Amino acid sequence: MQRALFHADNPMSRQFSADDSLLLADIIQLRRDVRGNRFLATDIDNDTMDKLLNAALNAPSVGYSQPWQFVVIRSDNVKQQVHQSFVKENAAGAKQFSSTKQQQYQNLKLEGIMEAPVNLAIFYQPVSKPVLGQTSMPDMGRFSVVCAIQNLWLMARSLNIGVGWVSIVDPEAIKTILNAPSNSELIGYLCIGYVEDFLSEPELKTAGWEKQKNKSQVIFTESFN
Amino acid sequence: MQRALFHADNPMSRQFSADDSLLLADIIQLRRDVRGNRFLATDIDNDTMDKLLNAALNAPSVGYSQPWQFVVIRSDNVKQQVHQSFVKENAAGAKQFSSTKQQQYQNLKLEGIMEAPVNLAIFYQPVSKPVLGQTSMPDMGRFSVVCAIQNLWLMARSLNIGVGWVSIVDPEAIKTILNAPSNSELIGYLCIGYVEDFLSEPELKTAGWEKQKNKSQVIFTESFN
Repeated sequence: MQRALFHADNPMSRQFSADDSLLLADIIQLRRDVRGNRFLATDIDNDTMDKLLNAALNAPSVGYSQPWQFVVIRSDNVKQQVHQSFVKENAAGAKQFSSTKQQQYQNLKLEGIMEAPVNLAIFYQPVSKPVLGQTSMPDMGRFSVVCAIQNLWLMARSLNIGVGWVSIVDPEAIKTILNAPSNSELIGYLCIGYVEDFLSEPELKTAGWEKQKNKSQVIFTESFN
Repeated sequence: MQRALFHADNPMSRQFSADDSLLLADIIQLRRDVRGNRFLATDIDNDTMDKLLNAALNAPSVGYSQPWQFVVIRSDNVKQQVHQSFVKENAAGAKQFSSTKQQQYQNLKLEGIMEAPVNLAIFYQPVSKPVLGQTSMPDMGRFSVVCAIQNLWLMARSLNIGVGWVSIVDPEAIKTILNAPSNSELIGYLCIGYVEDFLSEPELKTAGWEKQKNKSQVIFTESFN
């Protein structure tokens, strides 16, 4: 692997090539949110789980606080309890949509809790002292945990492993199921497993649930107008 | 570039190689939070900014809501106003730390607003209707915006561009400076530019501000005990 360096005495100063950045662009573009109808039963071995977790642990964290906690779940009993929370929250969630949307909603498979060989619950544990960089924006610790999740998601795609983020659960129910410390907060619940293939586009785009936004709607120069 | 496919008729099903995942692991590991004393003045051209923004726009978003807004800033006048907010918030933030820590805090360079050729403010704009996947966890839209930031950060590192996330600002002040819609929320403010090199470790680790956590402190199996 090429290692063109800025300074030969500092391996961290590695300069990546144009091909390297194109490869990352492909990984980013081809990452998908994977639902239960696509996971294979093949287990993910410990070495591979380490690669995923190392990607997460190398995320940026505000004030180097590393305020994350990961619970690796393979037990069907635990998954079943989580799935019960999904069923309850999903029924309540569906009702928030207008009648046409509600019908479409109920036809969507929105999780893969039981199908995915590995589930991963990711928590934020607040630090009891002031955190550098979090004094003006109190959500920064939570955001650090999300950066860890996104690192893991991309690493999974590069290993041809699918990840689905299930947010239709009651965070307090998940905390109880996993015996989480009282001050920990659920940030994400992931279903992880190998897949037969990855969809060519986000499922909700293909299904016409939402349209892709134009760049002009979301990118501004110097200020908003 | 190798394109081993699961299904030849679906280019999105590209299977990445072991080398590909190692390259991503390197990009993740060598990403740094870059402060003002390290940015070069070299501008970032529009094609390169497009690569960064495309990485962000390919992030996952809850219910495909794409609830992000990006403001690209090169104006010194705008940067100066943002910097004033940093100075004020940083003085207030420093006071939250014990006297020894406070001295160390004040020796740290914590932003590169004026030094970085490009600043990027990233907002979350709440959607006025129910969002699929956000009915039980209302922060999911904000978290989607963070996923976009992390994608951009990694893409920047692959292009040998440094990014520093400045969270020591008053979000409301930044909204006013950028004339943001009243319901938009600042999620992140990034300083972006080429650098001479990247530090070998997180600066706050090297400085002894915080220690690296052990895996056993943050990774659990099946439940928290």
